[in-house]
Amino acid sequence: MTEGGDGVALGPGPEFDRIRAVWRALGGHGAALGDDAALVEVGGERLAISTDLAIEGQHFRLGWLDPVEIGWRAAAGALSDLAAVAAQPVGVLASVGVPGERSEAFLTELMDGVARAAAYVGAKVWGGDLVRSEHVTIDVVVVGRAPAPVSRAGARPGDGLWVTGRLGGAVTAVRAWSEGREPSAEARARFAHPTPRIAEGAWLRDRGARAMIDLSDGLVGDAGHLAAASGVVCVIEADRVPIHASADWESAIAGGEEYELLVALPGETPDSLGREFEVEFGVPLTHIGRIEEGTGVRVVRNGQPVDVEGGFSHF
Amino acid sequence: MTEGGDGVALGPGPEFDRIRAVWRALGGHGAALGDDAALVEVGGERLAISTDLAIEGQHFRLGWLDPVEIGWRAAAGALSDLAAVAAQPVGVLASVGVPGERSEAFLTELMDGVARAAAYVGAKVWGGDLVRSEHVTIDVVVVGRAPAPVSRAGARPGDGLWVTGRLGGAVTAVRAWSEGREPSAEARARFAHPTPRIAEGAWLRDRGARAMIDLSDGLVGDAGHLAAASGVVCVIEADRVPIHASADWESAIAGGEEYELLVALPGETPDSLGREFEVEFGVPLTHIGRIEEGTGVRVVRNGQPVDVEGGFSHF
Repeated sequence: MTEGGDGVALGPGPEFDRIRAVWRALGGHGAALGDDAALVEVGGERLAISTDLAIEGQHFRLGWLDPVEIGWRAAAGALSDLAAVAAQPVGVLASVGVPGERSEAFLTELMDGVARAAAYVGAKVWGGDLVRSEHVTIDVVVVGRAPAPVSRAGARPGDGLWVTGRLGGAVTAVRAWSEGREPSAEARARFAHPTPRIAEGAWLRDRGARAMIDLSDGLVGDAGHLAAASGVVCVIEADRVPIHASADWESAIAGGEEYELLVALPGETPDSLGREFEVEFGVPLTHIGRIEEGTGVRVVRNGQPVDVEGGFSHF
Repeated sequence: MTEGGDGVALGPGPEFDRIRAVWRALGGHGAALGDDAALVEVGGERLAISTDLAIEGQHFRLGWLDPVEIGWRAAAGALSDLAAVAAQPVGVLASVGVPGERSEAFLTELMDGVARAAAYVGAKVWGGDLVRSEHVTIDVVVVGRAPAPVSRAGARPGDGLWVTGRLGGAVTAVRAWSEGREPSAEARARFAHPTPRIAEGAWLRDRGARAMIDLSDGLVGDAGHLAAASGVVCVIEADRVPIHASADWESAIAGGEEYELLVALPGETPDSLGREFEVEFGVPLTHIGRIEEGTGVRVVRNGQPVDVEGGFSHF
């Protein structure tokens, strides 16, 4: 989606009202806004660029993650934006703010986490910035090649709705920490070491993906963004949603903080595609619903509509 | 300068020791580090990319600047990194963190400042990220075309050392605020509304600039980076340094927080180039010293060496 600043189609919520107001304020200067990554033409090549800001106390706490994990998670979150548009990462930059009392080892381990995530997807670390700050702050910028990007806006009535992975683990870990408990190793790994679905995004594009988004705001929240961008309704059959072993149903439906892909595929796509995907990538691809005419998100359970408020807000 | 992670040539100082350690930790993943902007080859075109993080309380205070100025200054600082490598800005992304109690107007004005700085240099706002944070936080990413970049590393003995603008105003404003006084309008403008020297950087490149750097760390500090990258000594004749009307000599020599360019030009460059520059851009270009064999920075006043500790640290 490329909009000139007179509004970006996102789902409902005060956070998104703010983003809309900001883009409106950009007026004619804005370009290529509204997808997970900005898609821009430079030198005859289509690039996807995204920037992702994570701040201690807002997005993670120091007691939850070690520095390598903080760096990995921040970079994986930004890289996930490239996965969602089926781009191939090329380079990563990281701006880092650390308190003066933090050791040099903390900083090098944090950057090591960034570098590992970059290397995992075949990207290089191009540079960054280093400043002093009260709270650990990390902004990761990712640049990728996107010769054939997938947007949020291409879903059409009749398409099927699919999701990668098993959902709810990351938010289950956050809930445990917030309640003073240690999460299970499996839930913790979902938060601390998310996998950017780069190869998966390209594979889905090659199988005809019409629209794609990553689940940073949770299944219902991000389905709302995809529905708004495409001008359709996303119907989610709750019983089909793959739930992470550590999680309950509500966490899987509404929880965010993880980076799986939600994708609209042509209606005729056979469910056997899910098995092919799992053989290829070792994680499931599940047919969880469909695209219909209308607007918004409808969650259905046992044939009955379920009222789900659009995703948890960030803690 | 393109180094593979085994060390980046910067001037002395604990802040720079940290940066060196981080780049060392990146090992083989690092690329194109050590200049103001990362220089990368994408799609047959050379791009310059930089990311610049500014945090309330570290880089500015809310009582000093209005939101438009915060946005302008953050974007101008990042754009200045492109000026220093003689790149032409194409696009800007901004990740912004704001406290929950800040109004929507604050956020839109801040982004308006970013958009104005981008428009000033002919770049578009491509997108960004918006999160909640305790302190106002803004990371600006800039992407430019750099078909013929200038690095920090090309200065050679016999070159002349030149600087754009008049120095010391920005740090004079910061000192006034820190002492509870209101700075003069002229000093304030130098901090609140710095001009990224984009056209100037390209002009200097076309006049044979061998090495260039912007003065975010101050004249002596950044001369140290240029000297280290080029493997030379920068000799600065203090009496020639153009001092901003609001500033004293020490602020001009050692103060940072402003975005003029320090440039090494061939030794045969006539001083009349400074007049041509001033006619073109309305600000002076001053011949302030020379490049000699050796290492580090030597400040000379009335023919005598002066001991200047490498620039003020950030407040």
